[in-house]
Amino acid sequence: MSRFFSDKYAALTPYTPGEQPKDMRYVKLNTNESPFPPCEAVIKAAAESAGLLQLYPDPDCTPLAKAIAKRYGVGYENVIVNNGSDETLNFAFMAFCDKDHPAVFPDITYGFYPVFAMLNGVPYTEIPLKDDFTVDVDAFCGVNKTVFIANPNAPTGVALPLCAIARIAESNPDNVVVIDEAYVDFGADSAVKLTEKYGNLLVVQTFSKSRSMAGARLGYGIGSAGLVADLQTVKYSTNPYNINRMTIAAGLASLENDGFSMANCRMIEENRAFTVRELKKLGFTVLPSLANFIFIRSDRIDGKSLYLRMKEKGVLIRHFDKERICDFNRVSIGSREQMEVFLDTLRTILEETV
Amino acid sequence: MSRFFSDKYAALTPYTPGEQPKDMRYVKLNTNESPFPPCEAVIKAAAESAGLLQLYPDPDCTPLAKAIAKRYGVGYENVIVNNGSDETLNFAFMAFCDKDHPAVFPDITYGFYPVFAMLNGVPYTEIPLKDDFTVDVDAFCGVNKTVFIANPNAPTGVALPLCAIARIAESNPDNVVVIDEAYVDFGADSAVKLTEKYGNLLVVQTFSKSRSMAGARLGYGIGSAGLVADLQTVKYSTNPYNINRMTIAAGLASLENDGFSMANCRMIEENRAFTVRELKKLGFTVLPSLANFIFIRSDRIDGKSLYLRMKEKGVLIRHFDKERICDFNRVSIGSREQMEVFLDTLRTILEETV
Repeated sequence: MSRFFSDKYAALTPYTPGEQPKDMRYVKLNTNESPFPPCEAVIKAAAESAGLLQLYPDPDCTPLAKAIAKRYGVGYENVIVNNGSDETLNFAFMAFCDKDHPAVFPDITYGFYPVFAMLNGVPYTEIPLKDDFTVDVDAFCGVNKTVFIANPNAPTGVALPLCAIARIAESNPDNVVVIDEAYVDFGADSAVKLTEKYGNLLVVQTFSKSRSMAGARLGYGIGSAGLVADLQTVKYSTNPYNINRMTIAAGLASLENDGFSMANCRMIEENRAFTVRELKKLGFTVLPSLANFIFIRSDRIDGKSLYLRMKEKGVLIRHFDKERICDFNRVSIGSREQMEVFLDTLRTILEETV
Repeated sequence: MSRFFSDKYAALTPYTPGEQPKDMRYVKLNTNESPFPPCEAVIKAAAESAGLLQLYPDPDCTPLAKAIAKRYGVGYENVIVNNGSDETLNFAFMAFCDKDHPAVFPDITYGFYPVFAMLNGVPYTEIPLKDDFTVDVDAFCGVNKTVFIANPNAPTGVALPLCAIARIAESNPDNVVVIDEAYVDFGADSAVKLTEKYGNLLVVQTFSKSRSMAGARLGYGIGSAGLVADLQTVKYSTNPYNINRMTIAAGLASLENDGFSMANCRMIEENRAFTVRELKKLGFTVLPSLANFIFIRSDRIDGKSLYLRMKEKGVLIRHFDKERICDFNRVSIGSREQMEVFLDTLRTILEETV
């Protein structure tokens, strides 16, 4: 830290992204990426748009925002497109939180929420997940703060039903309720259909996981025209040209080939079911996941040791050094082949552990 | 504005980017884009990287940051890469300004500076340009605030010599001095070489103009390791994956083909000299520009009328409805053909005005 760094960030600890190791090739199951490349049309659209790089992109991303609106059955004025989910979430912390509107989220959830709160000088409260690692819905009802809930939750993979989201939105009419649906396309229900009824509900989604575009950086928010207008004000005061031409073209092509991505999601769900079955045979506890990852623990080996032993053997999974979940590991669901390598490696480690 | 929007933004007026009209084709000389596409190697690198879009990019952009460091003769630890100059500038307002470290910049400069200040709740002062539209260097010396100076300045195009930057940095040892060099490659001197001596000096550059990559969104900051570490803390607390894979690949290829971009800059300088000569024949006042645009006025037609008449005739230039400069228009320097169309259109308008 230099002596010029503003005191307001004295306590700021940045987010730690999952490892992106450069030393060797791993079976990489640690950052919830898709094992499938995007379809040819997406790659082609991105490549073609590179010929016009000398010109600024359209800051409104109009055709892309319209395609998202059409895909989700909402109006163009209900959609804001940003540089990833993270940027959309940060804009929501900026727009809808302050000292009088503190943030609230579960104690075990996406690790970036407390960082966004600290970055923006927003007080925050964490509501513990219940013992079964489900979100304590009652505790969020009438909480009178700006609510952030990942659904399905990360790193647990556990999802809330829509009726729970509706109760939380309805019981906090004077606060915004942000539902972070980064992982919704792998079997959970989206709250987008509730945004028409609840003007305080903002749904955040991303092209990173289900659309195989983590490398393109594209996310969006869907909500009432008022909420979206507020987020646009923040965007146009921060970085109006936040999405490059190639990503805009790729996103549009992805939506035009929606079936390709959705079929990939079904494949991930099958691979998830296969992996869970095999893990249960090995005596693992696996939380019920509707995401493209699972959260697992075993009585036979502690969480950190398993993570380290897997890494030694070339399989990268994610361990969180945090109370309540340090016995667990989060494992992204990859291709069938990747999951077989993961399971074989796991079996070897368990045998060595006896 | 929704009733949920934080009061702290009550007075926030977003930045207005230059028009990006979709209604017809214009000779577009209003947003300082390059008239030249990037070289084939850049287009190819971007296109090839689209095949791995399912994987997150490297948040440190290590090979790209190293290439920038090499190009400018600084260390890797002196470089931060971001999603455009705008994001780098916003990070600087976040990191180095607060109530105790207000911002200061010229009254006529890049219109985003006051927006960044308002967005971040930072008090700011504007120091008037002198009557000849040069920056009042003496007024910035010992000003004891966080300094933001565009060099060359926008929308005037007028540049400061490096000795002036050095005086400002040296006389404000307890504050950061940010030099925004978006337009430096068209004939001005870069202050990068001063960053080794002045630990409080941060230079911000972009691939948008001189490298024909406005559509890719790529900017960077160069300064002491301490300043760069602070900006990294802000980046990793905001949006660590802020640059997509295609833009990283394109940027690297651009630096590997540096001569291509620098030759384009020389062509812009020639076209600028040609355009200035012709404008002076028509009686225009043209501020001495070292940027890829010129700032012009005529006694024969007021600024706003000229802008509107040019637009009617399919040539887009930029007019600012602001005291002191409303008689002027900013004209980006395009290809020789574009500048001939601009001049022909201008001659027609002047004839019609008699």
